[in-house]
Amino acid sequence: MRPELDTYVVYDIEDDRVRYQIANACKDYGLERIQFSAFLGPLNANKRDELFLRLKKVMGEKPGKVLVIPICEKDQKARRSITVHLDADGKPEIHEE
Amino acid sequence: MRPELDTYVVYDIEDDRVRYQIANACKDYGLERIQFSAFLGPLNANKRDELFLRLKKVMGEKPGKVLVIPICEKDQKARRSITVHLDADGKPEIHEE
Repeated sequence: MRPELDTYVVYDIEDDRVRYQIANACKDYGLERIQFSAFLGPLNANKRDELFLRLKKVMGEKPGKVLVIPICEKDQKARRSITVHLDADGKPEIHEE
Repeated sequence: MRPELDTYVVYDIEDDRVRYQIANACKDYGLERIQFSAFLGPLNANKRDELFLRLKKVMGEKPGKVLVIPICEKDQKARRSITVHLDADGKPEIHEE
């Protein structure tokens, strides 16, 4: 069993249909949406290759870009984020990691 | 001198002005735009902290999310991408890495 690495899929696609299919492919491989056009989840090298081939097929000749970036545990720990979410009353909730 | 690591900044920001300021901050730190809402470039830990603080300040209480992800050389080499670009005649040029 090859080890799983947290893998980002980040994309820039104009065509709504292609973007939707890219998102679906990511979901099928168990990745979670972390931003509008970014998914993250654990994949081993085989699954990563499979997903990459599927993304390539989906893209076809439509303009855009897809990145698939596996991240080792150490890098994943060094990741930082800021999220600002408005609650039901429109009050900002700031979350930093 | 602390070592530089290739660092991704990926964001999801609704407000045009905030998005513009995030992009400007990334450019000031020498990062290059790789997608509409993603920058990449080498930063050492100090510069990464500085940039993170600036991004936090720019975000303020505006809704959205910013991720700062340093990537070790090994992970960077395992990165894969597909880019489809239309040339002047509208013919697709497919580039895979």
